[in-house]
Amino acid sequence: MDGQLAVGGVPVERLAERVGGTPFFAYDRRLLTGRVRELRAALPADLQLSYAIKANPMPAVVQHMSTLVDSFDVASALEMRTALDTTMPPRRVSFAGPGKTDAELRQAVAAGVTIELESENEAARIVRTGAALGIRPRVAVRVNPDFAIKGSGMRMGGGPQQFGVDAERVPALLKELAGAELEVLGLHCFAGSQNLRADIIIEAQRRTVELLLRLADDAPGPVRYLNLGGGFGIPYTEKDQPLDLAAVGDNLAGLLAGEVRPRLPEARVVVELGRYLVGEAGVYVTRVVDRKESRGKTYLIVDGGLHHQLAASGNFGQVIRRNYPIAVAGRLTAEPTEQVTVVGCLCTPLDLLGNDVMLPAAGVGDLIVLYQAGAYGLTASPTAFLSHPAPAEVLL
Amino acid sequence: MDGQLAVGGVPVERLAERVGGTPFFAYDRRLLTGRVRELRAALPADLQLSYAIKANPMPAVVQHMSTLVDSFDVASALEMRTALDTTMPPRRVSFAGPGKTDAELRQAVAAGVTIELESENEAARIVRTGAALGIRPRVAVRVNPDFAIKGSGMRMGGGPQQFGVDAERVPALLKELAGAELEVLGLHCFAGSQNLRADIIIEAQRRTVELLLRLADDAPGPVRYLNLGGGFGIPYTEKDQPLDLAAVGDNLAGLLAGEVRPRLPEARVVVELGRYLVGEAGVYVTRVVDRKESRGKTYLIVDGGLHHQLAASGNFGQVIRRNYPIAVAGRLTAEPTEQVTVVGCLCTPLDLLGNDVMLPAAGVGDLIVLYQAGAYGLTASPTAFLSHPAPAEVLL
Repeated sequence: MDGQLAVGGVPVERLAERVGGTPFFAYDRRLLTGRVRELRAALPADLQLSYAIKANPMPAVVQHMSTLVDSFDVASALEMRTALDTTMPPRRVSFAGPGKTDAELRQAVAAGVTIELESENEAARIVRTGAALGIRPRVAVRVNPDFAIKGSGMRMGGGPQQFGVDAERVPALLKELAGAELEVLGLHCFAGSQNLRADIIIEAQRRTVELLLRLADDAPGPVRYLNLGGGFGIPYTEKDQPLDLAAVGDNLAGLLAGEVRPRLPEARVVVELGRYLVGEAGVYVTRVVDRKESRGKTYLIVDGGLHHQLAASGNFGQVIRRNYPIAVAGRLTAEPTEQVTVVGCLCTPLDLLGNDVMLPAAGVGDLIVLYQAGAYGLTASPTAFLSHPAPAEVLL
Repeated sequence: MDGQLAVGGVPVERLAERVGGTPFFAYDRRLLTGRVRELRAALPADLQLSYAIKANPMPAVVQHMSTLVDSFDVASALEMRTALDTTMPPRRVSFAGPGKTDAELRQAVAAGVTIELESENEAARIVRTGAALGIRPRVAVRVNPDFAIKGSGMRMGGGPQQFGVDAERVPALLKELAGAELEVLGLHCFAGSQNLRADIIIEAQRRTVELLLRLADDAPGPVRYLNLGGGFGIPYTEKDQPLDLAAVGDNLAGLLAGEVRPRLPEARVVVELGRYLVGEAGVYVTRVVDRKESRGKTYLIVDGGLHHQLAASGNFGQVIRRNYPIAVAGRLTAEPTEQVTVVGCLCTPLDLLGNDVMLPAAGVGDLIVLYQAGAYGLTASPTAFLSHPAPAEVLL
């Protein structure tokens, strides 16, 4: 036997029959649960976990995550509705995003979620919305830090930014908010994402805590919410080393016990993670439609492609394309014996899923699996590109 | 007055009211008609135009294009259905793509469209499908040329490729097909796309004609279809110079009169264009939700973003991000007086629409328009990213 990949205990070939066809995404709830358990073990007990739904907003995934984490972060009205369809209390749902519309703010105020306030202008709009609805809005101020973190997949703080309020302007804003009809819960700072280096995350958290504690002095009341951001990365390519979670956890334990608790005893202290919670719990499953030789190169052409898993093609936010981990689902333990290029079914050379990868022999009908597809897969891909049917998503 | 952008004669501000909100895409049928007229004038009279629906599959656009062009190219079953909903005869619809599934081939054979055959394996599957349905399939052989074209946005021929049959193997394949239950209409070669250099396109067409005429010697019957590909680019950024269409047309006239017609008098000779036909006929319209200063930089945050127009963010197939043309819809003729950065509403730094662009002063409520949004806009973007509502599309 060559070893058959299973998700949630179901062999993928059988799963394809159950789903009714390929391609599809399959997420494993035991991996989600296990990942949160690992995190809880590594992080201090009084640190809370927030799930950033944008990483994977499939309602079944969000329902399962609601049983595991302490809060949700949402980035749109639909994500908010998905969050509120769980038993998560509204105040444990935070709504971030630099371009919230008046309609979204109205929904958020009505829902009673915590709005991560991104600008002075947005503050004024939230106050007006609260007055119009007769509801006192809950807000936290998102801070654009006065430092930048290197080594992140994406930098979201430091220097000029569309995100948050510049740190140096936060004290004045907090004073203004003190007199407004708002419940100011606390502060939020998100320096960057997809970072694999513990030393950089540690430094970011140290500086974030230092900054937010300084700004907390100007808060209109006791700070009850302190969101330190996230940015924990997962490995996608051979060159990536997994994050040293223990080191990050030790640092956070020290920061909480030594700095935060003495100053802000009432604060719910949160790290907000998306990709790190769900990214490794999903696979994207496709079937080989054609196998062809062209001038010395062997191609496996599958029935999926970049329209479902854009990141694996290198066309979403990457500078240099690298292969994501890939396998023949029915031959997990077989020796890789040939070099092939796996491409999607789209009529574009961009649709490259595995370039010159070593795999066990595979042909028409075999299932090809891309790993690390649990986050920013289906929803971060141009599903309508070339008008193919949308793939299914299943949670096992 | 500062000049107000109109699409199809309707001022964009009024159009936003008619659509019911922003963001949306607006396409101008007069620009589509005008573009085809320009092409007809520049290209030889006996050259036919095919529209590659993938560039913009909005049904209303496809309906309008069906009155202008001679044939359609489709890349999926849904695109095929959209094409067949027009009055275009099925045999004038060609279906290309390296990963056609058995189900798609069955639909294509049943429809009677021309299948662009991409591999020997696909040929065998088409024959089987025809036998199963009792229908003689119509095919053309897509050739992977034995030359490569530089300077294309995307190279789709030459060297090893997932597209088509290597030129050197085409003679043997044609001999095989001669004995099969297939109607072999002709040959197809597509060397690359989004090319702005007439000299390179001319060279590609010269070599394509030379190659296809050579291969035509082995065709089982008279060649009735010769698809020379396309690849005509449109300018997206300041550094781009528009294609010299006259030069391309003159070359094609010479090739048709001098080479093709004497040898293949019965052939319908086609250039296949997508982006060039529709790309400049559309705009993407967004509204400013926030205007903020951050450390010396001014941001306009709009209610759209990369989830609708990914290419403008630089995250779809581009190596270096450059600004797409952008304007304040209500101030077309006003002097650009300030440098701003236009970002979308998404909670990611990837969502950059205009970096340090010079615009007339604009604030909350103003409409910001991105040009060159008629091709590979909405359908080439991750519409579900962060779960915002899908934008409308209108044809005027």
